[in-house]
Amino acid sequence: MALLPKIEYDNASPEVRAVFDDIMSTRKTDWINNIWKVLANDPPQLRRFWNEIKEVMAPGRLDPLTKELIYVAVSMTNGCDYCINSHGAAARKAGMDDAMLAELVAVVGLANKGNRLATGFQVEIDERLQPRR
Amino acid sequence: MALLPKIEYDNASPEVRAVFDDIMSTRKTDWINNIWKVLANDPPQLRRFWNEIKEVMAPGRLDPLTKELIYVAVSMTNGCDYCINSHGAAARKAGMDDAMLAELVAVVGLANKGNRLATGFQVEIDERLQPRR
Amino acid sequence: MALLPKIEYDNASPEVRAVFDDIMSTRKTDWINNIWKVLANDPPQLRRFWNEIKEVMAPGRLDPLTKELIYVAVSMTNGCDYCINSHGAAARKAGMDDAMLAELVAVVGLANKGNRLATGFQVEIDERLQPRR
Amino acid sequence: MALLPKIEYDNASPEVRAVFDDIMSTRKTDWINNIWKVLANDPPQLRRFWNEIKEVMAPGRLDPLTKELIYVAVSMTNGCDYCINSHGAAARKAGMDDAMLAELVAVVGLANKGNRLATGFQVEIDERLQPRR
Amino acid sequence: MALLPKIEYDNASPEVRAVFDDIMSTRKTDWINNIWKVLANDPPQLRRFWNEIKEVMAPGRLDPLTKELIYVAVSMTNGCDYCINSHGAAARKAGMDDAMLAELVAVVGLANKGNRLATGFQVEIDERLQPRR
Amino acid sequence: MALLPKIEYDNASPEVRAVFDDIMSTRKTDWINNIWKVLANDPPQLRRFWNEIKEVMAPGRLDPLTKELIYVAVSMTNGCDYCINSHGAAARKAGMDDAMLAELVAVVGLANKGNRLATGFQVEIDERLQPRR
Repeated sequence: MALLPKIEYDNASPEVRAVFDDIMSTRKTDWINNIWKVLANDPPQLRRFWNEIKEVMAPGRLDPLTKELIYVAVSMTNGCDYCINSHGAAARKAGMDDAMLAELVAVVGLANKGNRLATGFQVEIDERLQPRR
Repeated sequence: MALLPKIEYDNASPEVRAVFDDIMSTRKTDWINNIWKVLANDPPQLRRFWNEIKEVMAPGRLDPLTKELIYVAVSMTNGCDYCINSHGAAARKAGMDDAMLAELVAVVGLANKGNRLATGFQVEIDERLQPRR
Repeated sequence: MALLPKIEYDNASPEVRAVFDDIMSTRKTDWINNIWKVLANDPPQLRRFWNEIKEVMAPGRLDPLTKELIYVAVSMTNGCDYCINSHGAAARKAGMDDAMLAELVAVVGLANKGNRLATGFQVEIDERLQPRR
Repeated sequence: MALLPKIEYDNASPEVRAVFDDIMSTRKTDWINNIWKVLANDPPQLRRFWNEIKEVMAPGRLDPLTKELIYVAVSMTNGCDYCINSHGAAARKAGMDDAMLAELVAVVGLANKGNRLATGFQVEIDERLQPRR
Repeated sequence: MALLPKIEYDNASPEVRAVFDDIMSTRKTDWINNIWKVLANDPPQLRRFWNEIKEVMAPGRLDPLTKELIYVAVSMTNGCDYCINSHGAAARKAGMDDAMLAELVAVVGLANKGNRLATGFQVEIDERLQPRR
Repeated sequence: MALLPKIEYDNASPEVRAVFDDIMSTRKTDWINNIWKVLANDPPQLRRFWNEIKEVMAPGRLDPLTKELIYVAVSMTNGCDYCINSHGAAARKAGMDDAMLAELVAVVGLANKGNRLATGFQVEIDERLQPRR
């Protein structure tokens, strides 16, 4: 059970409703998932997180699907079940199919292994691999 | 300093040389970076890790650039300096420019934050977000 | 389900009961939560962990509420649901209200993001920021 | 070496300089540490991160020292050397002395252990510890 | 609920069945646990992971029980409930009893604490502790 | 550079010297590595950590080499360079050779991958794998 109550739209302040409305219209959907209802207990935090999501996950030099895949990869590495499910669903919406999901998990698994091989053996960074600045 | 000595090509067994040759020809390069030289102390582990990298990072339903970005995202999350530099270089080769790197870090940072908001508040997974199986 | 059975007070050895009694009298409560019942399978481990909790979490240069907030912050970062709930309850007892919890999560989220920005870009530590020793 | 060049004030765009000026005046200091110079490669990310730091770390229901201690605790848990040093220095400025630092590390160490005892034994959350909502 | 359907033996392709058969005969058991059924959605990934498990976890310079204990220790550190249960069961089969499990958790807890003491205080590696190569 | 000064034996209080003496006699060595010198800034923390190390890492149902391997495995997973080097040296003393180190890293890498496959696909724990209590 969440540590703070879920604020439903009908009981929300105008400030919170404005964010909820923006989430629904940006995502072209008519419902709000739990994390936003919990964040609504702290309206400035709700606003900050939503604005950051909207800015960072928007199309840029990386497309939205790539961004969602990266978000899910981090969530799998950290073991955040909520995030794997919510951003997994967002990645599906953005075009991820079963085969892409399976490849995503394969890369995430490989990277988590490779990280420990490099750290475990305490491998020094090759001079040639360092950025020249 | 690495916990095991680096095996250079000239001192390597035929089994190890075969892997080193495959790495260089697959990557169209004439040198071998440190992690492979350290892994060469355990030839079966060298072979396994290289074969997995070759299979998993190859073009599939996800393209090689996307896969390298995911690999780097995981490495940033885990704090593996060697991997951030080596796979950062690989991502550069595959097409990542400065602006894409900056967006990658922004998504990685956001996901690491989002993971802790969801976990920190102990948000329950919405019924609608769970896969229907 | 826990990997070892929960030892209830009535079935506990005198050694375990002594720790349970000390937990209840120190905390001014009449019940024992699950982690202690599981640790009771290994009485020396039970004793060590309880003594450490009692010493480390006691008022010192940092007050008990600050210490509980730090404990919860670490637990949110590591994704330990049991610890978020048990030390979240302890923090409530020590004075944490809803607004403080929301600020705690905001700092934890921000720090987890900031950690990945610094590591992701491989930022070098400024000479001026290093301790002079 | 950082993956992107450090943008110095003298070479910065007006947009970046405005953030640098705000950092220096808010912190009552005349220099800028490395992370901001690297983030300056992506001005919107620079702005977002600075605004979030300014809002979240400001006095609220938790005081600035408590917030810095929490930030450092998370950074120690994640092993971010840059952040331990930069926010360690900020915590010193906000009043942390050697004894408080030692207690902070003791709590961080204890929480990281406690998290693994609870998870390692797969302890179930006690009904009484769950929030009533 | 898993993100991909579980493929049961009766509905599996010959390629998948061959791996399932090998798992059951290697482990001298007549059933397949969930992770393999999910991995069966991506037969090459199923084959790779099973072959790696079979090679790496086999008796070598370290015996199978020691390897399972190490696997469980990592899983406890990462908070992977599935893995703690599945490899905990494998460790039991290989000889782990309740007292060994309790000692395992004690070492895992201690190491997680020790890691944060060393990192938290930013302790430099002693010259004498570094490998001479 | 460490965040607190290193207390050398000659400048240490009797309380700290007693712990240093016990470390040296228990380990049959004539020097003290850096982490103890830093912990000496907080004598009760020094005493607690040393006593716990002495108790937990002593021969029990698991032998000292197995315990050191588990400690190193956790340190590799968390990326604690100090701990990988210091407990790597302790494992060497307890009998770990190059081949065992290579197998250790292989298991640590595999477990870190396996953890993310199980979590990434959100695999449910099989009824049969859960402990019967």
